[in-house]
Amino acid sequence: MEKDNTSGTDGPTLPMGFTAAATACGIKREGLDLALIVTDPPATAAGTFTTNRIQAAPVKWCREIIASGRPVRAVVINSGNANACNGERGLADTRTTAAAAARLMGAAPEDILVCSTGPIGVPLPVERLTRGLATAFEDLDAAAGAAAAARAMMTTDTVPKFGSVSLPVGHANVTLTGLAKGSGMIEPNMATMLAFLVTDAAVESQDLRELLGAAVGASFNRITVDGDRSTNDTVLLLANGAAGNDPLSPDHEDWPAFRDAVFGLTRDLALKIVTDGEGATRVVTVQVTGAATASDAERAARAIANSPLNKTSFAGADPVWGRVMDAVGYSGADVVEGNVSIHYDDVPATQDGVATGVAAERLAEVAARDAFTLRVDLGLGPGEAEVLTCDLTEDYVRINLVE
Amino acid sequence: MEKDNTSGTDGPTLPMGFTAAATACGIKREGLDLALIVTDPPATAAGTFTTNRIQAAPVKWCREIIASGRPVRAVVINSGNANACNGERGLADTRTTAAAAARLMGAAPEDILVCSTGPIGVPLPVERLTRGLATAFEDLDAAAGAAAAARAMMTTDTVPKFGSVSLPVGHANVTLTGLAKGSGMIEPNMATMLAFLVTDAAVESQDLRELLGAAVGASFNRITVDGDRSTNDTVLLLANGAAGNDPLSPDHEDWPAFRDAVFGLTRDLALKIVTDGEGATRVVTVQVTGAATASDAERAARAIANSPLNKTSFAGADPVWGRVMDAVGYSGADVVEGNVSIHYDDVPATQDGVATGVAAERLAEVAARDAFTLRVDLGLGPGEAEVLTCDLTEDYVRINLVE
Repeated sequence: MEKDNTSGTDGPTLPMGFTAAATACGIKREGLDLALIVTDPPATAAGTFTTNRIQAAPVKWCREIIASGRPVRAVVINSGNANACNGERGLADTRTTAAAAARLMGAAPEDILVCSTGPIGVPLPVERLTRGLATAFEDLDAAAGAAAAARAMMTTDTVPKFGSVSLPVGHANVTLTGLAKGSGMIEPNMATMLAFLVTDAAVESQDLRELLGAAVGASFNRITVDGDRSTNDTVLLLANGAAGNDPLSPDHEDWPAFRDAVFGLTRDLALKIVTDGEGATRVVTVQVTGAATASDAERAARAIANSPLNKTSFAGADPVWGRVMDAVGYSGADVVEGNVSIHYDDVPATQDGVATGVAAERLAEVAARDAFTLRVDLGLGPGEAEVLTCDLTEDYVRINLVE
Repeated sequence: MEKDNTSGTDGPTLPMGFTAAATACGIKREGLDLALIVTDPPATAAGTFTTNRIQAAPVKWCREIIASGRPVRAVVINSGNANACNGERGLADTRTTAAAAARLMGAAPEDILVCSTGPIGVPLPVERLTRGLATAFEDLDAAAGAAAAARAMMTTDTVPKFGSVSLPVGHANVTLTGLAKGSGMIEPNMATMLAFLVTDAAVESQDLRELLGAAVGASFNRITVDGDRSTNDTVLLLANGAAGNDPLSPDHEDWPAFRDAVFGLTRDLALKIVTDGEGATRVVTVQVTGAATASDAERAARAIANSPLNKTSFAGADPVWGRVMDAVGYSGADVVEGNVSIHYDDVPATQDGVATGVAAERLAEVAARDAFTLRVDLGLGPGEAEVLTCDLTEDYVRINLVE
């Protein structure tokens, strides 16, 4: 497997048959705010969406199309406006967006997926958007388009996020490329913010859905910035078959490699989102083992990962393991105080529920790293879970004071 | 009912038979850190404690004494050290503390309640504490002691918190006085941080327990600063009968007035805690109505009250109602988007799930108040709940970076 352009400012390679473009259509005061990704031939599509009970109009639109199983021909993404909580008008505006893209391509509105990200409850300036689509359509490009699209999706993100891998499937060479955005309002439960994976592999529709669901569960659903779950979270995976491979399914000999590629790319993009968490300076992997059950492990890991006191101590590089014990204690997980041990990377802070007496400087050295793993063993059973989080800094507050 | 000294820097009146004192015994680097409250005659005692599965040694100690139903003669409170997660040594240190106070008074260790607050996992310097107790015992005072005790309980608190009311009960005049501390690691579920209510009324033991449980449920259990629930939360109510009234119980004609006094004082102290939330500049009452059930209403209210994005928008005085909708949507409460309405005090922001179009300045004027009520009507049923929260500021982060 060859990896290219998994980070940096250069754009990623788009798989065969995909083109992309971006433009500044005026939804934001300045900068790129509209992206278009087109696939020819049409692609099999899978998607996972926010579990928030309040869902943005484009989420409702995409859900229906993905559920219908029809192939898709393009994805339109705008930043600067979530088109959420806009009632009937919001749904009409999403349909207008899809129809405008469809008209340019000679397609039907239902061939077009639509995603939006930005403030909630502000009517979408849909005429600017449709005018912008015409411009973007002229600029569609296989080489330069993806980097521009990744930039156009950004809101409080400080860097564009993308990655790409190629691998042989039978006699063909297939490429898998992902674009993602996300920085705040992040604790996905079903999907996270916006991420788009596109591949020129041919993949059976049902297999594509199951693969995406599993990969999202192990990646985007394992990160948290602030515990706030968005109304717009969407992950899409499009497979257009342009690589000419025999269709992939679990009994194909190259399925494990393709599956690994999807898992690897989603984890990579998820890590990029949490690393770019609003105001974040440090990424902490919270790893809970020894829980009575897997769901207990996840409860404990999420309690630690979302606790403002733990997140501020991560910012301060202060190994305050008492705050970790406290969060475990209120997490709802089964806990026996005398069984708990805590490590910062490989340095033991707590054994059998009390301080190990290890030198404070050794713990502080780990807590000051750009990334470390907080290992919490509950000493009760086989349950394990891992959640990635970032620190809570004054910058997070500054960024979110006013929308 | 006459109210006196419910705020300010003067101390509150202590009920008859109660004395208090405080000293700097050296647990903290500087300042008062040890308080002693003594009652003669011994008092009937009720208590509520943290629901955290990890509980500090003094919580375990107090639970047993309260459960036994025995009268108590004193409460020892130290700040600067939580005596939590210290294993067997922690339990021994709490017992040593109680024994030292008991020796001074000619009592048994089990006559003495002990509470601690401060960092977790640091061994208690128990010799300094017992030496300090001897000093405090010499200084016991009915007039000046309470204010000093309220100060000695403080950790990141910026002001001491107390209140006092007097009311006639039959031919007697009874006084009810409360002291509280709490600023961070606050989302009580059974009790909050530390609060002590003392009264010279005679009250039947079982009635005292039920009254305290109900009052705590309507006050300390309704506030949140950061959603972190402490290992040490304790609320105690001591009634020594020194006022000479006929014992109070629900069939006493003055019970409603006494009940109102306890409810009023606990709400007052709870409001003081959230107002003094770490870094807080503003108090927001989150009031949810129209939920399918009362527990749905509480879920929605707590989701809003604990959401970092909502709490930072409170700090920024920005009426971003979209963040309120978002939190309601992921709260787990039953929600129908088109039924939700949101008011900032009396100004409508959202009706039927979409913007009302009311002028932004009118909403902003409310959001800039020192205190306002965020009213969220889910439009589904009779469920109601109220939670008090504060804003999340850069100062919260600064305060908690390093312990």
